[in-house]
Amino acid sequence: MHRIPVGVLGASGYAGRELCTLIAGHPGLDLVFATANERRGERLALPTGSLTMVGTEDAPIGQATLVFSALPHGASAEWVARVRAAGPRVVDLSSDLRPGHTAQDVPYGLTELHRDRLRDAPLIANPGCYPTAILLALAPLVRQGLVEPGATVVADAASGVTGAGNSPRADMLFGEVTENFRAYAVGNEHRHLPEMRATIGELGGDLDLLFTPHLLPVARGILATLTVPVTSIPADLMAPWRLAYANEPFIELVTELPSIRDVARRNVVRIAVREARGLRQPTLLVFSAIDNLVKGAAGQAIQNANLSLGLPEALGLPA
Amino acid sequence: MHRIPVGVLGASGYAGRELCTLIAGHPGLDLVFATANERRGERLALPTGSLTMVGTEDAPIGQATLVFSALPHGASAEWVARVRAAGPRVVDLSSDLRPGHTAQDVPYGLTELHRDRLRDAPLIANPGCYPTAILLALAPLVRQGLVEPGATVVADAASGVTGAGNSPRADMLFGEVTENFRAYAVGNEHRHLPEMRATIGELGGDLDLLFTPHLLPVARGILATLTVPVTSIPADLMAPWRLAYANEPFIELVTELPSIRDVARRNVVRIAVREARGLRQPTLLVFSAIDNLVKGAAGQAIQNANLSLGLPEALGLPA
Amino acid sequence: MHRIPVGVLGASGYAGRELCTLIAGHPGLDLVFATANERRGERLALPTGSLTMVGTEDAPIGQATLVFSALPHGASAEWVARVRAAGPRVVDLSSDLRPGHTAQDVPYGLTELHRDRLRDAPLIANPGCYPTAILLALAPLVRQGLVEPGATVVADAASGVTGAGNSPRADMLFGEVTENFRAYAVGNEHRHLPEMRATIGELGGDLDLLFTPHLLPVARGILATLTVPVTSIPADLMAPWRLAYANEPFIELVTELPSIRDVARRNVVRIAVREARGLRQPTLLVFSAIDNLVKGAAGQAIQNANLSLGLPEALGLPA
Amino acid sequence: MHRIPVGVLGASGYAGRELCTLIAGHPGLDLVFATANERRGERLALPTGSLTMVGTEDAPIGQATLVFSALPHGASAEWVARVRAAGPRVVDLSSDLRPGHTAQDVPYGLTELHRDRLRDAPLIANPGCYPTAILLALAPLVRQGLVEPGATVVADAASGVTGAGNSPRADMLFGEVTENFRAYAVGNEHRHLPEMRATIGELGGDLDLLFTPHLLPVARGILATLTVPVTSIPADLMAPWRLAYANEPFIELVTELPSIRDVARRNVVRIAVREARGLRQPTLLVFSAIDNLVKGAAGQAIQNANLSLGLPEALGLPA
Repeated sequence: MHRIPVGVLGASGYAGRELCTLIAGHPGLDLVFATANERRGERLALPTGSLTMVGTEDAPIGQATLVFSALPHGASAEWVARVRAAGPRVVDLSSDLRPGHTAQDVPYGLTELHRDRLRDAPLIANPGCYPTAILLALAPLVRQGLVEPGATVVADAASGVTGAGNSPRADMLFGEVTENFRAYAVGNEHRHLPEMRATIGELGGDLDLLFTPHLLPVARGILATLTVPVTSIPADLMAPWRLAYANEPFIELVTELPSIRDVARRNVVRIAVREARGLRQPTLLVFSAIDNLVKGAAGQAIQNANLSLGLPEALGLPA
Repeated sequence: MHRIPVGVLGASGYAGRELCTLIAGHPGLDLVFATANERRGERLALPTGSLTMVGTEDAPIGQATLVFSALPHGASAEWVARVRAAGPRVVDLSSDLRPGHTAQDVPYGLTELHRDRLRDAPLIANPGCYPTAILLALAPLVRQGLVEPGATVVADAASGVTGAGNSPRADMLFGEVTENFRAYAVGNEHRHLPEMRATIGELGGDLDLLFTPHLLPVARGILATLTVPVTSIPADLMAPWRLAYANEPFIELVTELPSIRDVARRNVVRIAVREARGLRQPTLLVFSAIDNLVKGAAGQAIQNANLSLGLPEALGLPA
Repeated sequence: MHRIPVGVLGASGYAGRELCTLIAGHPGLDLVFATANERRGERLALPTGSLTMVGTEDAPIGQATLVFSALPHGASAEWVARVRAAGPRVVDLSSDLRPGHTAQDVPYGLTELHRDRLRDAPLIANPGCYPTAILLALAPLVRQGLVEPGATVVADAASGVTGAGNSPRADMLFGEVTENFRAYAVGNEHRHLPEMRATIGELGGDLDLLFTPHLLPVARGILATLTVPVTSIPADLMAPWRLAYANEPFIELVTELPSIRDVARRNVVRIAVREARGLRQPTLLVFSAIDNLVKGAAGQAIQNANLSLGLPEALGLPA
Repeated sequence: MHRIPVGVLGASGYAGRELCTLIAGHPGLDLVFATANERRGERLALPTGSLTMVGTEDAPIGQATLVFSALPHGASAEWVARVRAAGPRVVDLSSDLRPGHTAQDVPYGLTELHRDRLRDAPLIANPGCYPTAILLALAPLVRQGLVEPGATVVADAASGVTGAGNSPRADMLFGEVTENFRAYAVGNEHRHLPEMRATIGELGGDLDLLFTPHLLPVARGILATLTVPVTSIPADLMAPWRLAYANEPFIELVTELPSIRDVARRNVVRIAVREARGLRQPTLLVFSAIDNLVKGAAGQAIQNANLSLGLPEALGLPA
């Protein structure tokens, strides 16, 4: 197969590295450059050999058909504009162009929900990791009108540390994180909230989302525990998800409760549902697990790039 | 000071060991025996020396003024009855005699809430670890009538593995727990639910509790994240807790979000509160952290033993 | 490609599971059965679907061209004999048929050292994990006569917990292993010592090996730190290894010190060498890292099966 | 008891914090200041209350009878000189004034070996963590002439991450250290080597030390595994240590192999010995475990401060 040339801006972060690894194993893509300002000149080890990283300013953008930006939030938008002006397609992994963060109307790449508008799209805003876990779990109930109108949906979620990137930070040192657990960005202050609210609104949801993230002493993985007041308990608990996600290769509907280990290094979201017994308000508990670096970042970015480029959506992404 | 002789039934589990260590450092108690059926004859290392563990049948019960039972759930009640019949006072760490588990009317030792009925009590049912974290955080809102009537209170909590004891179990092996996170006993099926419901009812609460525990890859610690619909947001968020817990030596009301590390090896519960902004229903987020083996088990048992024996409640328990 | 039918005895342990996963991704092998006595009837999840495990007695041995035995030490030899009597080839992952453990002359599958006698071999004893890391690192010095005659070679090594299997054991509980580190089986008492001594002797080594294993709080990985008195320091430190291992796809000679993360989930051994400066006795430090479940068990077993079956040695084993 | 006023320079690092906590619980010391340049103005939580940290330049040095310096290597020596010039005694936890690092003749505070020269000493260089574990384990063999003359003693050791301090470093992020293990500073390049060599020489040792440190995925603890060629195997393996360390409150000679958990948060070194069987050269394996922040830093500093101030050596240091 002729491989399509692609590049990665910001290849030294956790998501950027994961992306380069996935591209290296992708039968339809060819990694022609990878940038890393502070680590320019260093070799990036890949399954297929190694690549010398260049500074972002020095990237041969014009050689790529599609460019992934894994640059930091705030810094990405400008580079996305420069790349688009030069011609290549872009999948942007930062939050800069996601709903709620920009006035531009950029297709939001929650692939399973928005596939139709992503095919052949020249620019795609790749979702955040928490929104991927939470929205894919919640969407079937919202779309099918099963959420109690006006209710609060509680989304408590916990993430491994790679979600915070690999820049040196004292609070992310091993000595601070091991044997510890805490919430952060609580009270609906997290950067991922706007894209979740916008998407829920677009799906027709009349609900208030309360999102509380926590930091886990693990490297990778997100587990979201959703408490959803519903109009009634479905006779077949999983029916709403089966209806929504028939034949989706990257969505696993399971009966056992999912763990983050089940999804490690895999481009899937794993979802299980339980009835919350003993409450006056009919309520479902929905559990959703992803690998924050794969389905929550680089893997979903590959799904989106495949759609943008007219390749089979699952190419290079073994579930 | 004359030391009061005490014994421990079930000293080889995590809670039993912690209890023996605390007793060894307690200026008013003297550990006269410790039992462990499978490890009888083994030495139990203590800061003050060591003690040879005996089989439970061989415990010289009559030598103790008070006996702690850290025997397994189901096995404890019978031994508690035998000890009481022989004379000594008992603090039972199992769930056997807690509200919702027995028809007997045994004082429930959530010390800060029930102190008056614990003084001089000959038998005390020591609370579970999750109920300690959740009820102490929730009680001020319930007692002060601030919870929205009929509302669901969502209690998502995560615990270290010592909460599951130290009997060999394949799902608790290091290789299964490291880099992992999952919920368990969901849908209101956990053994700790009855005592929480009974206590909330007794406090006059009109609410439905939805409790979802999770397993953390840490040895010790519990963090509970409570979502509480309230009648209105207090002008001073912490006022309900300050009112309820003035001068409590083992309750720490803090402004920073608590982490389990903050409370490790300490007999305290640390509580912080946030407003959940952007919701139609006024809602508070309450965070509560304890060490499951100390304030959630052995430390609180010492508080209760002190009350039963007429000693100062905080004796031997450095906060 | 026509796939050759293979079976796995003992598929519920860590090595057995890893093996089944590797076979599922192998283009030349077809997994026709997997056995697990205590978990018979359970489904084994594989990348390519799932397989119901059967009891070992019920395995359709005759359907396989080659059978891997990942049965426990002591139990494997009998089954190997039964399988061989029935016809199929065998790669045995237990220690039962390794040098020093049996009077039989079974080819020892340290692939890079013994390739010639493994081609088409009907029965192969797959090496232990520690011997794989240690012998591949040490062999070039031994074979090239560079070890100081009569010297003691100190092999301190540390392994993740999956090396101990997944049977429930109190000392392998997460609560016991986290934040801990200790040696075990010291003083040359480890089960892996005989095969190391036998192999060193066969390579012509005149040295005494002192092997001290340690238990790491990680799931997988072994790092061996070898102190080797040598006749002289090579001008080019890595020359002995480059000479021995030219063109080996699964041996990585590196200049940076190897870490167990570098080799996780990969069928490689990574080796680095340093001179120990400031000693009267010329001495090399050799560092060797493997994934104990891959190059140290299931991956090497696939290498050996490929050789036994006449397939390309690296087939199904992406380095 | 009248408490002696002391201060801590560099209270925001791991060792400095541990020191402040120990001082707060010490019945004979009163912490009158704690400095932290980057975190000046922040409150330091202590068991007995809290203290506001000041910049080092603003420390009221003259108010202290003794000052501990936990400043970084390189920065400490100058401050030690300033404090000494102002009058107070000093225990310096940095490497600046240890043997091999300075031409000054400063008493080296490996307490159990050098007690006589530490009593009333106005300035003491507190040992490094690795040297504490290694030298206390090795000294009895050296002093009693049992080490094979001219032999290489292999000291492989592994440490938790707090040994590297709490300044932000990318290689110490949780995501880099978890599930990992590696050697560092190998080939006798570690900063702790000079003080070990100097001390061995002073003890009359004719041996070459080969020290290889490793990084463990744990917060605290050091385990050293020493391979010591000896002139002969003692009939009673532990006799050399019992002879050397009779009645030492902080040295635990044990028969079971020590683990770092055994010594966590305790001011002890735990030592066990094994014969290395099957070697031509009589050889002992000596295992030594400490908490790097307690016996390896802050705890030993308190021992030394007690001696400098004429207090009982063990005061404030529960073993």
